[in-house]
Amino acid sequence: MAYNTSKNIKTNSMKQHTTEPDGRLGVLLPGLGAVATTMIAGVEAIKKGLSQPVGSLTQMGTIRLGSKADNNRPRIKDFVPLADLNDLVFGGWDVYSDNVYQAAVNAKVLEPGLLNAVRAELEAIVPMKAAFDRNYVKNLDGTHIKEATTRYEMAQALIDDIEQFKTNNDCSRLVMIWCGSTEIYMEESAVHSSLASFEEGLRNNDPAIAPSMLYAYAALKSGVPFANGAPNLTVDIPALIELSYLTNTPICGKDFKTGQTLMKTILAPGLQARALGVTGWFSTNILGNRDGLVLDDPDNFKTKEVSKLSVLDEIFQPEQNPELYKELYHKVRINYYPPHGDNKESWDNIDIFGWLGYQMQIKINFLCRDSILAAPLVLDLALFMDLAKRADMSGIQEWLSFYFKSPQTAPELAPEHDIFRQLFKLENTLRYLMGEDLIAHLDLEDYQDLASTV
Amino acid sequence: MAYNTSKNIKTNSMKQHTTEPDGRLGVLLPGLGAVATTMIAGVEAIKKGLSQPVGSLTQMGTIRLGSKADNNRPRIKDFVPLADLNDLVFGGWDVYSDNVYQAAVNAKVLEPGLLNAVRAELEAIVPMKAAFDRNYVKNLDGTHIKEATTRYEMAQALIDDIEQFKTNNDCSRLVMIWCGSTEIYMEESAVHSSLASFEEGLRNNDPAIAPSMLYAYAALKSGVPFANGAPNLTVDIPALIELSYLTNTPICGKDFKTGQTLMKTILAPGLQARALGVTGWFSTNILGNRDGLVLDDPDNFKTKEVSKLSVLDEIFQPEQNPELYKELYHKVRINYYPPHGDNKESWDNIDIFGWLGYQMQIKINFLCRDSILAAPLVLDLALFMDLAKRADMSGIQEWLSFYFKSPQTAPELAPEHDIFRQLFKLENTLRYLMGEDLIAHLDLEDYQDLASTV
Amino acid sequence: MAYNTSKNIKTNSMKQHTTEPDGRLGVLLPGLGAVATTMIAGVEAIKKGLSQPVGSLTQMGTIRLGSKADNNRPRIKDFVPLADLNDLVFGGWDVYSDNVYQAAVNAKVLEPGLLNAVRAELEAIVPMKAAFDRNYVKNLDGTHIKEATTRYEMAQALIDDIEQFKTNNDCSRLVMIWCGSTEIYMEESAVHSSLASFEEGLRNNDPAIAPSMLYAYAALKSGVPFANGAPNLTVDIPALIELSYLTNTPICGKDFKTGQTLMKTILAPGLQARALGVTGWFSTNILGNRDGLVLDDPDNFKTKEVSKLSVLDEIFQPEQNPELYKELYHKVRINYYPPHGDNKESWDNIDIFGWLGYQMQIKINFLCRDSILAAPLVLDLALFMDLAKRADMSGIQEWLSFYFKSPQTAPELAPEHDIFRQLFKLENTLRYLMGEDLIAHLDLEDYQDLASTV
Amino acid sequence: MAYNTSKNIKTNSMKQHTTEPDGRLGVLLPGLGAVATTMIAGVEAIKKGLSQPVGSLTQMGTIRLGSKADNNRPRIKDFVPLADLNDLVFGGWDVYSDNVYQAAVNAKVLEPGLLNAVRAELEAIVPMKAAFDRNYVKNLDGTHIKEATTRYEMAQALIDDIEQFKTNNDCSRLVMIWCGSTEIYMEESAVHSSLASFEEGLRNNDPAIAPSMLYAYAALKSGVPFANGAPNLTVDIPALIELSYLTNTPICGKDFKTGQTLMKTILAPGLQARALGVTGWFSTNILGNRDGLVLDDPDNFKTKEVSKLSVLDEIFQPEQNPELYKELYHKVRINYYPPHGDNKESWDNIDIFGWLGYQMQIKINFLCRDSILAAPLVLDLALFMDLAKRADMSGIQEWLSFYFKSPQTAPELAPEHDIFRQLFKLENTLRYLMGEDLIAHLDLEDYQDLASTV
Repeated sequence: MAYNTSKNIKTNSMKQHTTEPDGRLGVLLPGLGAVATTMIAGVEAIKKGLSQPVGSLTQMGTIRLGSKADNNRPRIKDFVPLADLNDLVFGGWDVYSDNVYQAAVNAKVLEPGLLNAVRAELEAIVPMKAAFDRNYVKNLDGTHIKEATTRYEMAQALIDDIEQFKTNNDCSRLVMIWCGSTEIYMEESAVHSSLASFEEGLRNNDPAIAPSMLYAYAALKSGVPFANGAPNLTVDIPALIELSYLTNTPICGKDFKTGQTLMKTILAPGLQARALGVTGWFSTNILGNRDGLVLDDPDNFKTKEVSKLSVLDEIFQPEQNPELYKELYHKVRINYYPPHGDNKESWDNIDIFGWLGYQMQIKINFLCRDSILAAPLVLDLALFMDLAKRADMSGIQEWLSFYFKSPQTAPELAPEHDIFRQLFKLENTLRYLMGEDLIAHLDLEDYQDLASTV
Repeated sequence: MAYNTSKNIKTNSMKQHTTEPDGRLGVLLPGLGAVATTMIAGVEAIKKGLSQPVGSLTQMGTIRLGSKADNNRPRIKDFVPLADLNDLVFGGWDVYSDNVYQAAVNAKVLEPGLLNAVRAELEAIVPMKAAFDRNYVKNLDGTHIKEATTRYEMAQALIDDIEQFKTNNDCSRLVMIWCGSTEIYMEESAVHSSLASFEEGLRNNDPAIAPSMLYAYAALKSGVPFANGAPNLTVDIPALIELSYLTNTPICGKDFKTGQTLMKTILAPGLQARALGVTGWFSTNILGNRDGLVLDDPDNFKTKEVSKLSVLDEIFQPEQNPELYKELYHKVRINYYPPHGDNKESWDNIDIFGWLGYQMQIKINFLCRDSILAAPLVLDLALFMDLAKRADMSGIQEWLSFYFKSPQTAPELAPEHDIFRQLFKLENTLRYLMGEDLIAHLDLEDYQDLASTV
Repeated sequence: MAYNTSKNIKTNSMKQHTTEPDGRLGVLLPGLGAVATTMIAGVEAIKKGLSQPVGSLTQMGTIRLGSKADNNRPRIKDFVPLADLNDLVFGGWDVYSDNVYQAAVNAKVLEPGLLNAVRAELEAIVPMKAAFDRNYVKNLDGTHIKEATTRYEMAQALIDDIEQFKTNNDCSRLVMIWCGSTEIYMEESAVHSSLASFEEGLRNNDPAIAPSMLYAYAALKSGVPFANGAPNLTVDIPALIELSYLTNTPICGKDFKTGQTLMKTILAPGLQARALGVTGWFSTNILGNRDGLVLDDPDNFKTKEVSKLSVLDEIFQPEQNPELYKELYHKVRINYYPPHGDNKESWDNIDIFGWLGYQMQIKINFLCRDSILAAPLVLDLALFMDLAKRADMSGIQEWLSFYFKSPQTAPELAPEHDIFRQLFKLENTLRYLMGEDLIAHLDLEDYQDLASTV
Repeated sequence: MAYNTSKNIKTNSMKQHTTEPDGRLGVLLPGLGAVATTMIAGVEAIKKGLSQPVGSLTQMGTIRLGSKADNNRPRIKDFVPLADLNDLVFGGWDVYSDNVYQAAVNAKVLEPGLLNAVRAELEAIVPMKAAFDRNYVKNLDGTHIKEATTRYEMAQALIDDIEQFKTNNDCSRLVMIWCGSTEIYMEESAVHSSLASFEEGLRNNDPAIAPSMLYAYAALKSGVPFANGAPNLTVDIPALIELSYLTNTPICGKDFKTGQTLMKTILAPGLQARALGVTGWFSTNILGNRDGLVLDDPDNFKTKEVSKLSVLDEIFQPEQNPELYKELYHKVRINYYPPHGDNKESWDNIDIFGWLGYQMQIKINFLCRDSILAAPLVLDLALFMDLAKRADMSGIQEWLSFYFKSPQTAPELAPEHDIFRQLFKLENTLRYLMGEDLIAHLDLEDYQDLASTV
């Protein structure tokens, strides 16, 4: 038997379109809390050779090129033209006036020894005043807040902040990654339906425009890529999608995929792969950081709950596999538990069934660290969103679904939650950008010689 | 920007080569213990509409064809020409003379109600005398054993059994799936190096030829596909690979991937995807069935241990990612624990580290059922191996790695353990066989319209 | 050195005061749900020799008498004069009209085979109409409900029920054990402060008198011992304590100690014994039975939460051990999770610290069965409350704290939650009743001979 | 009804016999490894007010005196005349010559900051050369070892060490607590049967006399109390019991009760109290310290296994409760797992059954720290053994069973493993020593007033 061995897809390279990452890249972070300060402190420590960027796919991850037997697996940062860590500068906004060193100390994520080693760099980063409204985050109360008569004025103030930051820090490019709190639950409404109505809403001070939308609007207006690390609606509305294409700017979101949901989108595809049925999935979390405090309010938890609940349906497709998944009862709880601080811990009970309906159970206890898992995602998104901008990729970046609990996709397109399909998509997108063959894991040619020797 | 949207690979179909599954398919099982009897009882119950083939990818699984937006996901059994369950007939060998009904009752896996509903069918299946040697499985002692002067004679007796079974049961085709015990640990030696030396060893009664090899030899000589569900060396030797190509017969193995190793090859790729480091992985198991008793002997456990330990290295590639994985300490234990019977339970402690080296832990407790997880794998392998034979695919079937703890590959080719890459390979192989486009999850065309509407 | 070896307390026996358990004992159960029907079905099965009363201290437990070296450990039922299981007859009230067989089938606790074996006995037990008010249990809705103009009338109807049951069933004695639902949270108020005000409240139809109080009042008026298996206020009010002494009737409560709280009052004394500190204790539960549904309502959960939260403070005494326990953060959650039915499952995370403040963690996952754990407590309480009545012990029976999450004690006396002190109290009370020496575990005499032989 | 309210036992005080703890107490520790150095460093830190003696019953624990309502609960150290921490001086022997600071650094139990604060005190403690024989601890290899022709000579050298230490450190009293390794499994033999035969064995260099016995012999000959923290036979032989009475010296052992066994002797009495059946108890441990390395050798593990397995039988008494416990399958495993270092972690699966035989499961995961749990036990035993000596209590101190996995008792007397009975015994022994009433938890008088007011 003779195989057709051309198992990988030949692509037309986009390599020529991508500009090189010259100059400094400014990383703007709304919300300089535990996640953002852990990321910044880490990058500074890594620059000094004190630590490793573990958890960062761009820095530590490799990518297979060509045939499996070629054994060609460069680091991703050596394969695609990403900004160098030494070219990053950080800034942001917060409702507290603490500089990044003080904020990092308060967050109690990193040990004092490490923070002291980068103290000067962190103290130099002082937050700009936040565009904040307590109606959207009830359990937070800050004092370092912008004053403005209308949402329009507030947005303009943010646009000014962005421009000033770029000039002051001599940046050639900027990206913005939302690291702020979860806002109250909100659904798409008329004011979100087009750029025109949105801008009218800004002037009319429409309460359906949440603070996070002002940041996103300001970024996109300025041509700055925007990634949304919280489950807030923010940039997932027609008005801002429209703006992203108009200004040729990448957007993506939402809600960093860490901890329990990360585990869920790893495990669920495995169960589905084996055609095992699932009748129940109970997930609970305990955490004692600021995020836990915010989510102790039911309105804010609702936003997070919707984000966390969505993942299983897409993976299991109960309408297509009713015998296996139509009975699935999925419940997610988050409990504020101060003794654990940032050491978020999850416990899952999964009720599955196999051959002839016999029941089995899986229990997963993840003693994780919330900000430690999230920090490298912020870094990767900053670097990939900058790449996307330079590669002329506007609008929704679905290939970055890998990083999100609730990936933003084209309207009416179901998001992909399976982390392995997300990874294949991400990797093949990079191969595509660089003109490499796509990988489909067929590898039939590996057996040509063997068969022919007999 | 204009994308090249042909993201999927056009293939040359092999569809025309594949013959249809006409007539009855005989499924021959060396070892009619808990796994085999659970599978047979289940298939009989399914034929009667009493139950569902949960856990069987061929019966319950779907496969995406074409663009994601097409939403075309037929069942695998409706996509590739597999034998129908109603055309299956079962037979096998065992060291005990119990018929399949009695053996299933003793195994205590299935409830009496279910077994009674298929009692007549199960009682009709009486094991042939086994080719057994207690030197290879110390904790088992059976009485229903063939007598023979040499290994060569024993192999001939098995060949006769196969032929007779085919005739008696009016089968058009046969497959053989090893469901017997784990033999003592054995490495490849001179007698295994070629078909000629192996056949000389049969006549010389060489102790390096284990009983399981006699079954494999007999199957391949008869042109019957052979899949190896235990970690034994068996068909993973040059002599039998040579024979498989000579007789144009598919082979695959080894060691059904269930329980803890299944979970491991689901979870480890997820950690690796996120570039999270791993310093330790401790796995323990408690089980009280015959398998547990056999593995209580250190020589037999060694065979299983080697199989179970191999998976992490291939997934993590410590030599390529030394910062993340070179310190990984991996330990696997199996404990005979009668109170749990066939309800194998595993507990894993995984020590991981993330951003800046901060440590986290994952604990997984899987209350599984050994034979319930294994039974559908036997069915799938029977159907896929028969397909492979009809599609003229000789030798090692690496695309069935999905089913094995320790996949057999071409010599010097590293096995793939990542269950998701295994699944992509399996699915793309089926697409390839049927002349469908391969899927690379790029899906760029989904965003063409969106961009153009702005 | 010469020891004083009289290490055990000589007591004045009460044996002569206790009457023998002649005749039939009627066990009246408000609430014929999962717990009550599991208990009744079990007792009937035990009477027929089909099963064992596992979990029942009265039936299976032993008690040490005299010196340890005497090795004298009779069964409790052979030591104290308890009613024989064959002399028990069962009755009760429920908001559904199902007989006990139907109710047990609906509860899905016991397997059909067992229920069929005692079907006739269970079908013969038909609930009396309940005194029910949905304002106190929002998530329940029944149709088998008494009509009455006032609470006073309702109480009289219950008194009539009791009398009629006694006559119809030819009982010499009765006990009542509350097995009904958790009512909404309620605190003691003026109407509860004396029997006079309570009886006025009955006539005035005061809403501070919950249905469970009507049952307790009716029992005590009739001289029938009353034990409270729910966390409801019920009999823990001055009015009914007064009545219990007036009619010379034993009372006790509240809230059967099962599952998670059972584990907590086992483990916490162990930590306290070793002077280990505790900073946090997070407890969550998943269950899918009627109890879970009722507790899904916040008002009803409040009652249960107060009961469940109280146990740790009394055991750890943070005011006396502030270095170890003043920071303790204790949180309890109950989640309605239908896939598990009556198979209540708890997960606890306990943050402890030891020598020099170093932190450690304990995780406990209890896959329990709610009604299986509760049923034998109902039986034991029925038998012990009947004993108490015959031994002329009026009012609060603190020695039965062993059975309750939130033991009723004399006003202003802290309840004892440590299950081992509860058990010592129970056992020494039995020894005291029977005129046996109390046991203080000093056992010095065991070493007299040894020392003297040298 | 009138109760006899004298529920507590009047005792004859031994108070007058006990001498006060004047002068310095020398604490001699064979084995200056993780446990001993953690204890010493901790005591030094506590003396300086840097930390708290958490986990030490003598220092942090309280004891109830009189009626419960009296609320009289002094600290134990304020109730009985124990040596003050400021009067303790430490010394010991080890097979490595590292001083205690270096040994503590190597043990990686305590953080550098704490160790530095007491560095001078720790560096001043230099081990004496050990009496060691690698035949008894195969996985250890030290160089700081005494030379001697016979066991007799070796014992004399230890006696000299003891005397010299006392003089050099100006101690009024000494105690010796074995903190060394687990030796290979050994059973009592003829040479152990009397002091005469033992001393003959010393001269004959009998291999049945293990090194730990030489330390015990030397201590007892010198009138120094000896407590055995390992599961070794050591002082649990007639010869040394005889010597202990001859020299009027207290002894106790064996094997510090920490971690998993601690949890087991907390939980098992709780299950037994409720008459719940147990069919299986599987216990596994992972640890990576020197203790883990030693126990990786099967001969040494045997000694530990025997110690760990013994606890359940005594608590459950299967011969007296065959319906509940005769099927109990108990298995204990220890796995050397370097990633966890001293952070010993245990996982238990407990299969229980309740009412009508229905099965339930308990899983306990204890993330503990081995030396942190053991260190305060060493301190308590040093203080209590010194008290016992001053109170003229010779021989086996069974009242200290609370501290041991495998309590030493009078020959033919079953040890008490229930930690709560052990605690009651310990507390009542202290009350007895001080002339206080024993407590039997009857507390009937609490209800006198209540009954009389009605």
